[in-house]
Amino acid sequence: MGMKIGLLQMNPTVGDIAGNVRAMAQAHAEAVAAGAQLCVTSELAVCGYPPKDLLLYRSFVAKVAAAVRELAAAIDPGVPLLAGGVAVNPAGQGRPLYNCAFLLTGGAVGRIFGKTLLPTYDVFDEDRYFEPYAGLRTFDLNGRTVGVTICEDIWNDKGFRPARRYGRDPLEELVPERPEVVVNLSASPFCLGKQSFRQSMLGGLAAKHRCHLIYVNQAGGNDDLVFDGRSAAYGPDGALYARCAPFAAEVRVIDTGERSGGLAEDDFTPPAETWAALVAGTRDYVRKSCFSGVLLGLSGGIDSALTAAVAAQALGPEQVLGVLMPSPFSSQGSLDDSLELARRLNIRTLTLPIAPVMAAFEGALAGAFAGLPRDVTEENIQARIRGNLLMALSNKHRMLLLTTGNKSELAVGYCTIYGDMSGGYAVISDVPKTLVYAVSRHVNLVHGGPIPEAIITKAPSAELRPDQKDQDSLPPYEILDEILRLHIEDYRSAEEIAAAGFEPETVAKVLKLVKGAEFKRWQAAPGIKISERAFGTGWRMPLACVRPL
Amino acid sequence: MGMKIGLLQMNPTVGDIAGNVRAMAQAHAEAVAAGAQLCVTSELAVCGYPPKDLLLYRSFVAKVAAAVRELAAAIDPGVPLLAGGVAVNPAGQGRPLYNCAFLLTGGAVGRIFGKTLLPTYDVFDEDRYFEPYAGLRTFDLNGRTVGVTICEDIWNDKGFRPARRYGRDPLEELVPERPEVVVNLSASPFCLGKQSFRQSMLGGLAAKHRCHLIYVNQAGGNDDLVFDGRSAAYGPDGALYARCAPFAAEVRVIDTGERSGGLAEDDFTPPAETWAALVAGTRDYVRKSCFSGVLLGLSGGIDSALTAAVAAQALGPEQVLGVLMPSPFSSQGSLDDSLELARRLNIRTLTLPIAPVMAAFEGALAGAFAGLPRDVTEENIQARIRGNLLMALSNKHRMLLLTTGNKSELAVGYCTIYGDMSGGYAVISDVPKTLVYAVSRHVNLVHGGPIPEAIITKAPSAELRPDQKDQDSLPPYEILDEILRLHIEDYRSAEEIAAAGFEPETVAKVLKLVKGAEFKRWQAAPGIKISERAFGTGWRMPLACVRPL
Repeated sequence: MGMKIGLLQMNPTVGDIAGNVRAMAQAHAEAVAAGAQLCVTSELAVCGYPPKDLLLYRSFVAKVAAAVRELAAAIDPGVPLLAGGVAVNPAGQGRPLYNCAFLLTGGAVGRIFGKTLLPTYDVFDEDRYFEPYAGLRTFDLNGRTVGVTICEDIWNDKGFRPARRYGRDPLEELVPERPEVVVNLSASPFCLGKQSFRQSMLGGLAAKHRCHLIYVNQAGGNDDLVFDGRSAAYGPDGALYARCAPFAAEVRVIDTGERSGGLAEDDFTPPAETWAALVAGTRDYVRKSCFSGVLLGLSGGIDSALTAAVAAQALGPEQVLGVLMPSPFSSQGSLDDSLELARRLNIRTLTLPIAPVMAAFEGALAGAFAGLPRDVTEENIQARIRGNLLMALSNKHRMLLLTTGNKSELAVGYCTIYGDMSGGYAVISDVPKTLVYAVSRHVNLVHGGPIPEAIITKAPSAELRPDQKDQDSLPPYEILDEILRLHIEDYRSAEEIAAAGFEPETVAKVLKLVKGAEFKRWQAAPGIKISERAFGTGWRMPLACVRPL
Repeated sequence: MGMKIGLLQMNPTVGDIAGNVRAMAQAHAEAVAAGAQLCVTSELAVCGYPPKDLLLYRSFVAKVAAAVRELAAAIDPGVPLLAGGVAVNPAGQGRPLYNCAFLLTGGAVGRIFGKTLLPTYDVFDEDRYFEPYAGLRTFDLNGRTVGVTICEDIWNDKGFRPARRYGRDPLEELVPERPEVVVNLSASPFCLGKQSFRQSMLGGLAAKHRCHLIYVNQAGGNDDLVFDGRSAAYGPDGALYARCAPFAAEVRVIDTGERSGGLAEDDFTPPAETWAALVAGTRDYVRKSCFSGVLLGLSGGIDSALTAAVAAQALGPEQVLGVLMPSPFSSQGSLDDSLELARRLNIRTLTLPIAPVMAAFEGALAGAFAGLPRDVTEENIQARIRGNLLMALSNKHRMLLLTTGNKSELAVGYCTIYGDMSGGYAVISDVPKTLVYAVSRHVNLVHGGPIPEAIITKAPSAELRPDQKDQDSLPPYEILDEILRLHIEDYRSAEEIAAAGFEPETVAKVLKLVKGAEFKRWQAAPGIKISERAFGTGWRMPLACVRPL
């Protein structure tokens, strides 16, 4: 006979212990109603992932403990729940906490299973808070053995990780206990390409260890991270037989005997993945920050067009305001394209010409700049006038300002700090320009063409001086983006990139720009990570330094 | 007979491998000329601390290795040098690198001693890069045993750390080998109060283990961290018998037999410590960023006055430009006080009235804001006009803009993002307002009164609307700063702070403001850490969250 397991794929808000526990209790009840004999949440579901330095407050950890006790008392005592949370390390030595799964059963908190492998690469800081767990990993459920692992614990297999980061393999250590089912509570941030590796690894691990592997992942966005859910069940033959929805919370009960559960509809092509991640990230950031509406500047370019499309999809068009701020350098085409975009998205617009404000700044600085040639300074002033207007609207109407820069720009500093970089959330700041185009075409294909073709086909321009084009000062985006990918995601030096076939002068110029823009990224708004290495919490580069890379 | 040891207290630039190695060779030669038989640098002296994600580039680590070999060949082969650097972990498993000391002797790279205890609290991310070292820790120097430890390795003593973070004590593990001397290569960031604890701990450790303890610490500023140097020698009786200069590079040769070396002049009172840290941090950030000059807005308040005084001391007054940007709400007193400050500091000024630009913005937004009451929006517009003007001057003249906000403001959000928060370096952003006053009085005492008394005695005001005073919307700074300290540095919740005797409503209001300003801090300029917990790389709080603290 099979075992019926409820996969509680949660979308918690970080720190909202009461709300998260309420949602867990409801999900548990739902799974019980559908016949579950055991339920499993995602990692740290009680406090949301990543809770960061909230964990350093004793009062916070105490509130987690109290909430877990209340949860145990509130749910059906006959159906155990493995609930992700944190527990105090009682040893009085080592890191203060365990990242753990509480086994709630019979109305009380039973055993605790901790996480052993604590990631400290990319966006992860788990050694900052957690002691590696060294205890037992299995429990008995009606005579059947269930193994418990947490996220990274299953990502150190010799076969899938040729260069292993840790000396131990908690999953392998479980095998002698012959578990019928191994569950894994995860909060595994999305990035492009991860799901295909994840599916092949999880299936491979289930087959290797001859057990059911039940993977329960967090869903939704928290700050700069988006979690793609896709909780899943794999059989002892390695076959995937159930998968939950991408990027959204879901409760799904699977039966290990009948291989039931089914696969939620999904699309793993990069443009579709990116679009889904941006929409989920934006929706959750706005909701979890308690904003109701957003605004953004519409320049007539592809970046603001895609950002507007994401916002309209995430929040509904009535919550989105597009602001046109033409200068004497703006083309009529840009204005027309922006208005057409807004019409198709059904979002409101406001037009605020900036020429009079530009003139006032020119007057204020006339004495100080007398005799000096015009340069990038005057372009930045325009961008910062627009930033000031957008923030004024944001302040007055209590709407979140979305910033619209892409990853290619942010990498080389082709953006103005306190100008177009102004805003509370940078929707596409991890999307390279070439992918911005691909996602825009994808959106037009599946959502009825909200982005006017003219915006997609025209040459990109900041329109900060007459006849300006991006490609006047940058290499073509196909080349730029590949150089950037090699440098940022593959950790290649200029020499190594040139050896891969790129012009050495171009590579040197690009890497110099990347270094020179570090001060802008230090002060950049949080964006949505979709790549292996985003300019967010996982990018930790020194500022005042030499970079012999 | 004693041993003569050269303490090479370096001020490296992160990533400047060639420059750092050149400085190490020169320091070694200087120490050899003074009779040293062994020389020791600070931690990671070859690449500078903290190198952060530069370490993830194989090419970078290869360049460190090449530079270390060249250094070994370049120095006097008869006087061994323990040089701080990084080495590849050859195991093909675990973290990629060791944080280590290379023993350079006889013209070649000899043994390598690694760091075992890898901090991951506060600003530290060492588990991200380094594998804990488990090898031998001693070597023989002319028949005498020398033990080698790196920074954190000696900070886990049972007596000094009641709640130990690590299960091992590398110093204690050394004792059976009966070292005559234990050296410690450090890069220990400054914070107030650390030196007194450090001295008592280091002396206590030397006495407990009956050896000479030779502590060599990094000096100078790197981004948001300042290192206070103060390398020192402690005898087996626990006595401190040599100490190097605070905050600056120095080469000092000590003799363990004669207890020679002497103590550099120093002052450990918090205002003196803070002043020295701010000057060193600002000087090094400007120099290591390759700027020659700085500018800042002068408001007539104490914050910009202290920042200007720091800049003038750090760089020389000729490198500092003060900008006055009066609005209709600015008082004549503020203008007069700023000009008097500039006169006393001997810095240049420029005056740019902003009323015409304010009028232009009012016009641009008249339609959008028709019928809506004035609120904080109009105040922010003024602050952002000033930010735009300052950045325009920064861009045109290639001068670094210093931002002038203090820690109390940044904590409660009493500052305008993209407005007065604009700038590349936030000199006093970790200095609470009450300490700003204390440091200002200290400066006036020891540097001939550069800050006009009127600036120190008047009630603080942002002057963004008529008759505005800080204390209209904030509790008195003495109370505010203590609530903030308890919450930020002592990790206390609202309930715990109220229990300590503060008005619960005031505490709740302050903590709500702290939470609400998180988005501003995410985009804040790097500042100089002087407290146990600064709003910099060591402050890792979630944004879109609930904070039940």
